[in-house]
This record gives sequence, C-alpha cells and structure tokens, in this order.
Amino acid sequence: MAGYVHTIDADRLEEWPDFFTDDAKYRVCTRENFDLGLPLSVMSCTGRGMFRDRISALRTANIFEPHVYCHVIGALRIVEAGAAHVRTESNFQVIRTMVDGTMSIFACGRSLDTFSIKGDTVKLAERTVILDSRQIDTLLVIPL
Amino acid sequence: MAGYVHTIDADRLEEWPDFFTDDAKYRVCTRENFDLGLPLSVMSCTGRGMFRDRISALRTANIFEPHVYCHVIGALRIVEAGAAHVRTESNFQVIRTMVDGTMSIFACGRSLDTFSIKGDTVKLAERTVILDSRQIDTLLVIPL
Amino acid sequence: MAGYVHTIDADRLEEWPDFFTDDAKYRVCTRENFDLGLPLSVMSCTGRGMFRDRISALRTANIFEPHVYCHVIGALRIVEAGAAHVRTESNFQVIRTMVDGTMSIFACGRSLDTFSIKGDTVKLAERTVILDSRQIDTLLVIPL
Repeated sequence: MAGYVHTIDADRLEEWPDFFTDDAKYRVCTRENFDLGLPLSVMSCTGRGMFRDRISALRTANIFEPHVYCHVIGALRIVEAGAAHVRTESNFQVIRTMVDGTMSIFACGRSLDTFSIKGDTVKLAERTVILDSRQIDTLLVIPL
Repeated sequence: MAGYVHTIDADRLEEWPDFFTDDAKYRVCTRENFDLGLPLSVMSCTGRGMFRDRISALRTANIFEPHVYCHVIGALRIVEAGAAHVRTESNFQVIRTMVDGTMSIFACGRSLDTFSIKGDTVKLAERTVILDSRQIDTLLVIPL
Repeated sequence: MAGYVHTIDADRLEEWPDFFTDDAKYRVCTRENFDLGLPLSVMSCTGRGMFRDRISALRTANIFEPHVYCHVIGALRIVEAGAAHVRTESNFQVIRTMVDGTMSIFACGRSLDTFSIKGDTVKLAERTVILDSRQIDTLLVIPL
C-alpha cells in the first residue's frame, strides 16, 4: 500500500498497472453511489490493458496545470486473510499542491482492497476507492 | 484502532460502545485544558451505559445537516505493554465532508488509549482524545 | 517515527537531537529542488551539535504567535533493511493550529530516513524531508 501511493505521488504512473493482477478490477466512486449500490463510477478499469491505456491517455492529454499529490493512508484493517488472498480496508487523505505552493484537500475516503498472493508476489486483484465528496473534478485522471 | 475509526466513519455508531470495557472512561478535551490539568471536557463518558445514552441522544436529536467524517490515524506508538493491557499514543486528523462536497479539517490532535486484554478480547479501558483546536463545535455529538 | 513526531508535536524540542546519531545529516528541502538535484535547503544540519544549536536559537528567538503542530505519518515503506541499518520512505501531513483555533495544512510531502541500528539502539543517521510546497514560511524554525 505504501509502495502503491508513493509510486503515484512520484508521478511514476507507468508503474501503476504493475501493482495489479492481469484481470484486476479497479473502481473509484463516490460514497453516495457506493452506499446506494449504484454502478456509477468516477473511474473504472478492468484488466491491466485498460490500466495502461488510461495512463497513455493521461500522458497524451495532460494539459492541466502541474500539481503534485500526497496520499496519506491511515491505520489499515485486515478484513479477511486467506492463504491466497487478503482483504483490507483503510482510510486515506490526498493533499494536492499547486505549482504556486497552495495546498488543499483533494480527496478523502476509504479503499477496499483485495490482494492476491502467489508465492512471493502480492498484487491487487480488486481495488475500490470510495470518495467522501461528490465534488470531484471530472477531469480527474490520476489514479487513486 | 482501524476498526474503531472505520465504525465511526461508516456511521455505525450503535457499535461504538462495544469497543469499550463495561467501566471504560472516555474523554474528549482541548490540548489547552489537558496541558493545564483542567477537568473541563468537550465530552466525557464513564461506563458503557453512558456511551449508549450518548448515541441514543445523538440519533434522536440529529437535526444537523448531513455530513461524513474521515479519520486518518498516524503512526502509533506503544507507550507501555503488559500482559493484560497496552497503552498507546497516536496522532489523528479528521476531514469532514458536507453534503455539497466541501471538505475541511474538522479536528486533529492525539489520543491516549489503554487497551484491556482478556484472552482473545481487546477492549478500550480508557480513551482520551486531545484536540489541538479550542474552536470545536459545541454541538459536536459524534464520537472521536 | 511515531515517537519522533510526537516529541516535536509536544514541543519537547530539546529531546529532538537525541533521535539522531552523533554525525547525522538532516535536511528539509522542496520537492522542486530535490528533483532537480539542487543543494538548496530550507533547513540543513550536520552533526548533533548543530541540532542542539538550532533548538537553542529557536527557544531564544521564539517571538512568533503560539501555535501547535500535528504530524500524521502515512504507511511506511521499508526501502532497504540490513543488519546495521534500515532505510524507509513515508508520506506525512502536518496540520498547524493557531491560538484562535484555526487549523490549516502547514506542510505535506515525504521523508527518506536511514536508521542506524546498534544493539538495542535505533537512531536516525540521515533524514531528508521533501516538501511538496515551495510556499514554506522562511521563518520556519521547528523541525519536521
């Protein structure tokens, strides 16, 4: 989890898909939609190919003002631990810093993660990021 | 600790008293009052019955605008570890998100916790939450 | 790490140098300068004597409005672990609370830490704090 957020914050986004299994599911949604069981997502990817496309698109279309992100993950709870997988829940906050130095809360909420364990390799098989705020920049392209 | 904050953030407040021993002490106070040794508290409960009353009152009186909380606990320090108890200190931040999506820092500070261990059961025997800010909403009713 | 930030937040700054080895290197810089490999620092100390001088100067010159800090460290990644040292990377956020109760994001970013291990003693041999924002109060005197 630490490696995951450090990779994003360091803008090493090309490495982001490597944290996932080949057929992984990734979803970012609002708490409102999640609680109501609505399928609406802010971002949704299935399969590592789609993860890579996402990053390519981001690198090509990246015309927004440069800014950096700082993810802080709170205490992690192990929800379920099996021989081949572990499910966890954790809260997070992301601070966005603009090029002029202004810092603001960009996002906060929780993530539900399922890790797949094969020998020494641990990959994310499923990651659902649930945002507390509905006021999310729809141009949001960076992964969470 | 992770389970504790996730329960509050998920608004499963009826489960909140279950984290405590029958005769647990719970107190929320400002850093100013704590440092001066003043008994003044923002919230104070002794005994699980009082915890339950608190939640009932909250559910009945809950007329405020809906909003959600996100607690992030920082690195936890084990202050003392015995066979039947563990004392810890940790910092925390809480982001409040209003229904319109606005996020702001609701509270931050540290908590001093004493966990009672009986067999496989770990419960909070004492929890003191020390708020950095004196500017706390006196209508604050959610647990921290 | 938890003890380190709790000591600073509790304003027990005289104990701060004790977290370091005698010849430790400490540096606070902006992400911009770090990424460009520029030597410019917001703060830089080499050797424990310099750490102590820093705190003495701070205690003498302390004329600013009183405020308190709350450091929250996110998930910590062990970058390298040897018999005599451990290198870690972690993100952090600091909330500053003014005397009137106003809370704001004071700093966020990451730290690269090298711990030296000798028997039961663990000390910081090197600590580099990389701030996301360039908008840092140049009168900043507290350690991070």
